[in-house]
Amino acid sequence: MPPCRPLTCEIVSIGDEMTSGARLDTNAQWLSRRMGELGVTVQFHSTVGDTLDDNINVFRIAASRADLVVATGGLGPTRDDLTRESLAAVVGQPLEMRESAMKHIESMYSRRNREMPERNRVQAMFPVGSDEIFNPQGTAPGIDLMVPQNGRSPSRIFALPGVPAEMVRMFDDTVAPRVMAIAGGGSRIRHAVMKFFGTGESDMEQRLGEMISRDRQPRVGITVSAATISLRITATADTDEICDGMIAETRREILQRVPEFYFGDGETFEQHHAIAATLRCRDQSMAIVELGRAAVLGDWFATLGDSPAYRGGVSLADTDDLCRIFDAANPDEALQNARQRFAADWMLLVDQYPALDNAADARLPNVDVALTIIDPSGQTLRHTITLGGHPDIMQARIAKSAMAWMRKVLQ
Amino acid sequence: MPPCRPLTCEIVSIGDEMTSGARLDTNAQWLSRRMGELGVTVQFHSTVGDTLDDNINVFRIAASRADLVVATGGLGPTRDDLTRESLAAVVGQPLEMRESAMKHIESMYSRRNREMPERNRVQAMFPVGSDEIFNPQGTAPGIDLMVPQNGRSPSRIFALPGVPAEMVRMFDDTVAPRVMAIAGGGSRIRHAVMKFFGTGESDMEQRLGEMISRDRQPRVGITVSAATISLRITATADTDEICDGMIAETRREILQRVPEFYFGDGETFEQHHAIAATLRCRDQSMAIVELGRAAVLGDWFATLGDSPAYRGGVSLADTDDLCRIFDAANPDEALQNARQRFAADWMLLVDQYPALDNAADARLPNVDVALTIIDPSGQTLRHTITLGGHPDIMQARIAKSAMAWMRKVLQ
Repeated sequence: MPPCRPLTCEIVSIGDEMTSGARLDTNAQWLSRRMGELGVTVQFHSTVGDTLDDNINVFRIAASRADLVVATGGLGPTRDDLTRESLAAVVGQPLEMRESAMKHIESMYSRRNREMPERNRVQAMFPVGSDEIFNPQGTAPGIDLMVPQNGRSPSRIFALPGVPAEMVRMFDDTVAPRVMAIAGGGSRIRHAVMKFFGTGESDMEQRLGEMISRDRQPRVGITVSAATISLRITATADTDEICDGMIAETRREILQRVPEFYFGDGETFEQHHAIAATLRCRDQSMAIVELGRAAVLGDWFATLGDSPAYRGGVSLADTDDLCRIFDAANPDEALQNARQRFAADWMLLVDQYPALDNAADARLPNVDVALTIIDPSGQTLRHTITLGGHPDIMQARIAKSAMAWMRKVLQ
Repeated sequence: MPPCRPLTCEIVSIGDEMTSGARLDTNAQWLSRRMGELGVTVQFHSTVGDTLDDNINVFRIAASRADLVVATGGLGPTRDDLTRESLAAVVGQPLEMRESAMKHIESMYSRRNREMPERNRVQAMFPVGSDEIFNPQGTAPGIDLMVPQNGRSPSRIFALPGVPAEMVRMFDDTVAPRVMAIAGGGSRIRHAVMKFFGTGESDMEQRLGEMISRDRQPRVGITVSAATISLRITATADTDEICDGMIAETRREILQRVPEFYFGDGETFEQHHAIAATLRCRDQSMAIVELGRAAVLGDWFATLGDSPAYRGGVSLADTDDLCRIFDAANPDEALQNARQRFAADWMLLVDQYPALDNAADARLPNVDVALTIIDPSGQTLRHTITLGGHPDIMQARIAKSAMAWMRKVLQ
């Protein structure tokens, strides 16, 4: 039965490399988002080094104040890996060898044709009374452990490896379903991500209104990265089909409210993917000239790999250089020549990125950036964008605005 | 008098945007590194949302287990900003208005020709008995507070704003000197950063040997970012001159041990800065062709801004495209033509970046990448690099290896 108040959670990150600052902890952020999507409120993150007493201390405190604890790290085979011992101490139980885990670890080694080092045996040790969390990608199984609490229901600790790929997979495969079984609201969870460019976060929030309320089902979460907005839709229900139906309905509602800035779906889907997909459908290609010597679009389009839609890019100082390189008397002629030499149907010119002062940490004044497109018929189209803002994301915003206009022209 | 054991520290980060996962906490990492440089051992990080009870809970626990606590966030003017109240509750003291802080806040507003909103008055409130930490860049002063502990010396809390630029400045200006006064070993601190490319972290550690020991003075810390190694030297002493002398001596020793991979100084100094500096001295320039459609070097050299040393770059699929674009029968001729059209003294060709599978999360097999340089006399130089590794940093390693070779040729 679901509890009457939202479940609370504490995320615990383990490792000297984090307390010393040598490594940035990104697991805690990822887990916080995922727990939020499951309707669980994350109240605390704690990070602790590789010291037994400190680990026991952190786990005791976490179990005393949170319904659920998700920990990462400390499950490797070395003496620095103390999560198993710490958890055993917290519940006052000895460690015991689990044959199923031992077999899995041995099979991971034999699959790679390697002998299992003796020290890896410790990874099959579990506190008596705890459950195993299967790790399909590595040798370190996770631990699922109840910690009895005076006067309230026990706290439940899920300990996962610190390697992000293993942690993510084990959370999605095993921890999320177990959390959902406790939290209620369905045993299946499905996600969809919609991407938008061209407006700000607060405008987006205003237009979505009550759709982004925390207790809505499906839940809609907003994140912003260098002016690209992601809406993550999360549905929980008893079957995948019901989840997908709820997500489809929510997508329709979002597209009714904010139709004009939407460009595609998927966590890693960006505008250059949208442009490449459109060009591929039409069996067309493009090339890019960026002035101000930046190569922002060039770098992004390069990640498309062997796409026939992208022919290549040039990054130059100014139109004088453009004319010299493409043997032309003026920039328009240079672009036409470039289009021919690149064997591209479309050309996009960004003229130009501003030179940025590295030291600046304040908003930049507005600049005008002239965009030119040559379409497959050879026609020249022009558009000017005016942008200011923080220097860290200025070039990205210019490049993204250029792509937004290119998408519009393609439509 | 300095204590006999190293001081311990807990970093506290405050804000719902971090516990919910909406924002990645980078302050805790930065502060951990800095405290480490001051000889202080960071044992814990704690992150807490904007809830009064939870904040009091976190500060009580932190003060009970750490000599020093550095907190960020919760000092703004809104009802969500609870650090002042939490600290007052932890020491059982009321808040009082500080005239000096009030005057500073008013002056920040009048400098911007704006009226101070009434709610900002709360930023001048301090727990009785606490000290102010001056904020030269914003309206939120920090709080420096002693929390008495039974049976041991009091814990000292430094609360700073969450805005990174303000936090960094206030830490360096005020918190670091106060920590040094407690930690002993001198009242001044100076840093230097040396950059290296071409070897791994473990080789570096081995060659530096006891130089990277934690209790050495000056301290030498290693960090690695996409195969570039930074050595950060931190000296504490009674005067800047003594610090600088110690740093110079340590630099000499490092350069004796690892002369061949060093390329320059400074946190943000990279190989393209080194190349541009060398070219500027000789009044020469370069242009770059990258095949495999990546524009990694193009993107980096673009950050040089208006440097006369960099003429621009092209990113293309392969040598066929290179020949067509520069009207040539073969790649060598194309490069010569490109050098003329770019009006560059040097050309660098990377042939080529591998196409990466987005889904891959494992080491890539080795690939050969052919590098070509045309020097100012028109001579063609060739070199092949063989590289494998994680796809996330593969392209960066290729680009950096190309620059390492270019630096060698320039010498």
